[in-house]
Amino acid sequence: MTVQPAYLQKAWYVAAMSTEVDAQALFHRKILGTSVMIYRTADGTPVALHDRCPHRFAPLHLGKRVGDEVACPYHALRFNAGGQCTHNPHGNGHIPQAARVASFPLQERYGFIWIWMDASEPDLSLLPDYTPLEQGHANAVGYTYMAMASNYELIIDNVMDLSHIDHVHGEIITTRGKLSPIVPAIRETATNISARWEWSQQPAMLIFANFLERPEDPAEHYFDITWSAPANIQLSVGAVQDGKGFDAATAQYDLHTCTPADEFSTHYFFATRRNHVVEDADYNEMKIKAMHAAFETEDGPLIQAVQDEMGTSDFFSLNPVLMSNDIAAVKVRKLLRKMIAAEQAAGALQSAAE
Amino acid sequence: MTVQPAYLQKAWYVAAMSTEVDAQALFHRKILGTSVMIYRTADGTPVALHDRCPHRFAPLHLGKRVGDEVACPYHALRFNAGGQCTHNPHGNGHIPQAARVASFPLQERYGFIWIWMDASEPDLSLLPDYTPLEQGHANAVGYTYMAMASNYELIIDNVMDLSHIDHVHGEIITTRGKLSPIVPAIRETATNISARWEWSQQPAMLIFANFLERPEDPAEHYFDITWSAPANIQLSVGAVQDGKGFDAATAQYDLHTCTPADEFSTHYFFATRRNHVVEDADYNEMKIKAMHAAFETEDGPLIQAVQDEMGTSDFFSLNPVLMSNDIAAVKVRKLLRKMIAAEQAAGALQSAAE
Amino acid sequence: MTVQPAYLQKAWYVAAMSTEVDAQALFHRKILGTSVMIYRTADGTPVALHDRCPHRFAPLHLGKRVGDEVACPYHALRFNAGGQCTHNPHGNGHIPQAARVASFPLQERYGFIWIWMDASEPDLSLLPDYTPLEQGHANAVGYTYMAMASNYELIIDNVMDLSHIDHVHGEIITTRGKLSPIVPAIRETATNISARWEWSQQPAMLIFANFLERPEDPAEHYFDITWSAPANIQLSVGAVQDGKGFDAATAQYDLHTCTPADEFSTHYFFATRRNHVVEDADYNEMKIKAMHAAFETEDGPLIQAVQDEMGTSDFFSLNPVLMSNDIAAVKVRKLLRKMIAAEQAAGALQSAAE
Repeated sequence: MTVQPAYLQKAWYVAAMSTEVDAQALFHRKILGTSVMIYRTADGTPVALHDRCPHRFAPLHLGKRVGDEVACPYHALRFNAGGQCTHNPHGNGHIPQAARVASFPLQERYGFIWIWMDASEPDLSLLPDYTPLEQGHANAVGYTYMAMASNYELIIDNVMDLSHIDHVHGEIITTRGKLSPIVPAIRETATNISARWEWSQQPAMLIFANFLERPEDPAEHYFDITWSAPANIQLSVGAVQDGKGFDAATAQYDLHTCTPADEFSTHYFFATRRNHVVEDADYNEMKIKAMHAAFETEDGPLIQAVQDEMGTSDFFSLNPVLMSNDIAAVKVRKLLRKMIAAEQAAGALQSAAE
Repeated sequence: MTVQPAYLQKAWYVAAMSTEVDAQALFHRKILGTSVMIYRTADGTPVALHDRCPHRFAPLHLGKRVGDEVACPYHALRFNAGGQCTHNPHGNGHIPQAARVASFPLQERYGFIWIWMDASEPDLSLLPDYTPLEQGHANAVGYTYMAMASNYELIIDNVMDLSHIDHVHGEIITTRGKLSPIVPAIRETATNISARWEWSQQPAMLIFANFLERPEDPAEHYFDITWSAPANIQLSVGAVQDGKGFDAATAQYDLHTCTPADEFSTHYFFATRRNHVVEDADYNEMKIKAMHAAFETEDGPLIQAVQDEMGTSDFFSLNPVLMSNDIAAVKVRKLLRKMIAAEQAAGALQSAAE
Repeated sequence: MTVQPAYLQKAWYVAAMSTEVDAQALFHRKILGTSVMIYRTADGTPVALHDRCPHRFAPLHLGKRVGDEVACPYHALRFNAGGQCTHNPHGNGHIPQAARVASFPLQERYGFIWIWMDASEPDLSLLPDYTPLEQGHANAVGYTYMAMASNYELIIDNVMDLSHIDHVHGEIITTRGKLSPIVPAIRETATNISARWEWSQQPAMLIFANFLERPEDPAEHYFDITWSAPANIQLSVGAVQDGKGFDAATAQYDLHTCTPADEFSTHYFFATRRNHVVEDADYNEMKIKAMHAAFETEDGPLIQAVQDEMGTSDFFSLNPVLMSNDIAAVKVRKLLRKMIAAEQAAGALQSAAE
């Protein structure tokens, strides 16, 4: 058995895009090293159970739905949406006390199904607010998912340090060398790390230029990103001309969020909403496909190569040479370490008190 | 090198189906973590040698037969059927004292070649009697083999708890829910665990119904299984009408037997003999293919999924919730553990005395 | 991370055939467990750098050439041919003191690029002299490369014990059983182990017979091999008739050399120069293809099977039965162990003194 690294436990992770779990599915995904089955009850409410029968450890997602319950594929023990065994077809039908599986609290918001993996009461205040993803025309928002064979923190690093974009990505989002020299302005709270870049470039980023009044002229740009525990990065980017202020920018509001499957496998989810050509379904489809392709063919292989070369998930153990562009990413790594350590210390204290 | 788990050593394991080792073959298979080569001498007698030249560790099965001897593929050291080096083509031809490979006693019975992997004298009294497989028309018996990527005890569990059949298998052998409620009658000896189920169903199991006088009417059925160390399960199943007694049943006599390759790889052998349409070669071929397909597509993937989810071969360490249908399987696991522990204790005692 | 076994560090290993590194390439290869990038500066000089950016560990060979420098694929830090960072496009452009990668001394000789992986001053006196490979017609020399999934010492064993050739290889280089009975004459120095066989056979080895005056008649033959640390074996083989002496032989001068990628992966390089039909380009191509094919289809699979059966790189731990044909190979293994141990002891002494 693989030893699992320490993850932040009291936290909301994205388990799936809402669209991945349809009315019939017994969807399954490995999350923080645990097999999880997700399905929707008849009223559409998603539920998550440990995907392992407590009898002989068959994955429940291979079983059959019986109304809002699920029968194990091996010996047909049936479990309800709360994880309690409700039917044992064997012998006198007695249901042992221990015949239940863990259920995990879910919240369906912003187009994602979020999961609370800890045994404690779920704390809704720890779920960040990404309401803008839900507001506006349905053709102005897109979602995508990638399985990445790397530790999740390497993906966070990638987004927290946007100085890579002129070097890794193509013409479509180049800042024409303007981003790299900027040391981003950092904002910090007890649980968030934000970074902001502002610059002018000519022409504007090509994803925006054609939606500006004068595509060939200079435009003011910004990137604003905010990491929130455990692995969410809200990224806003936009361009505007004529000193109109960024409130008037042609812009998009994105969410990058990662869920560790295990130490070297990560579920990478992405959502993007734009404020321009909001009714254009074809453009929307093209845009989400293009962004997916950029991850798959540009960031993805590079992050994978970094992971292979590192051979470990312990970034600092390799004595990286850090620079001004690492400031936000390093602050995130350190704050996340601190939060995990605090959680473990509190757990140890509680164990000692019991 | 993988650490091998503790296997019962003083025991007969099936090394191969008789048909797998033809007159020319240098057949090879990994058994209890050891590479074994099996071939037949000119008179047809099968012999088994350690499949590793003691010189530079080349697998002997890649070599050449020289009469009843085998020449190593690398430097042509030649070994006789007893494992003794008989020819060294190098230098002055001197054969070092240590130039021999272990030979393993074999018994060819019931359509299988059985192997004794322990260094002690083989004890024929430990080879169970499956004579019925050998008795009767050649078109009434079939054999098959599957490589399984799971620990062997999960396969024993599968057969010892027949309550899975209505849930895992299809219409052809359904008991129509009649089997599960029955707690089987258990018989135990020092070395065997048996379980027996009896029930009535209508119509009869479809594998038997068309051979009964009135296929649509109720029929009495039985399953009777006996595990013998290390990993043999003899299973009999039949159906009869009109209160004639099970001696008159339309029935089949099967053997399921497992040989560990290593902790997570198992050779699964199966034989079946029936007492009806015994001369029908087409039916025989269809039947063994159907049974093979059931293992490959129904039991196999499920056992594999269980193994993957368990991630260990130590079943009890995962605190399974056990039920009345587990009684026979758990008794087998416990008796096998006890026999292995006794064998190890005796070995330790002997080592201490020497 | 894989623990690397002890390699001889103060030594020249072949990193690549000269032809593998063209003017544009950012060539890469794992050597002694370390990722190495090799490229040629504008004047053709090969340089080798640690293939890992010190910032975020991206492989530099995925980056871009900027004249004689290389820009990292991730954030475009630029490194010169000595491994020093020369350009940081981020923030104020400050280049941290630690922003450099190890560079490895190279020597391009005999058609190969040789690398010194140790941090000490490279010692040119430790690079053996294989000048004959460079002398003569270009159509009389050939080079080839194979990736082998085995420990490098098993490949050295294979060449040091030529008694395998009548058993492993085909008609083309058979000695007709004449080689095996010969115990080779051994010559030893502090750093070299040589072995020599001489014999007569009829007809001559088929690779030579058609170039002799009377192809069907007996001919005198010799093999002469010299191992030099760490993993080079120079092999000469020839045939002559009429008691003319081996100086007049139809012969070839070969180099077999191995570079460990890691414990169970080896880069196997081979060069051969002949003294007959030296201008025949078609023959040259056929010959190197035939030798490559012999490694790939005859030695290679056997060495792989041996490695799989051994499951370790520690040959002596398996208590091999050694014979007269092992004398040269065993002397090499022992001398190499001794050299590695001496190097480690000197390193420990130096560490203690510091």
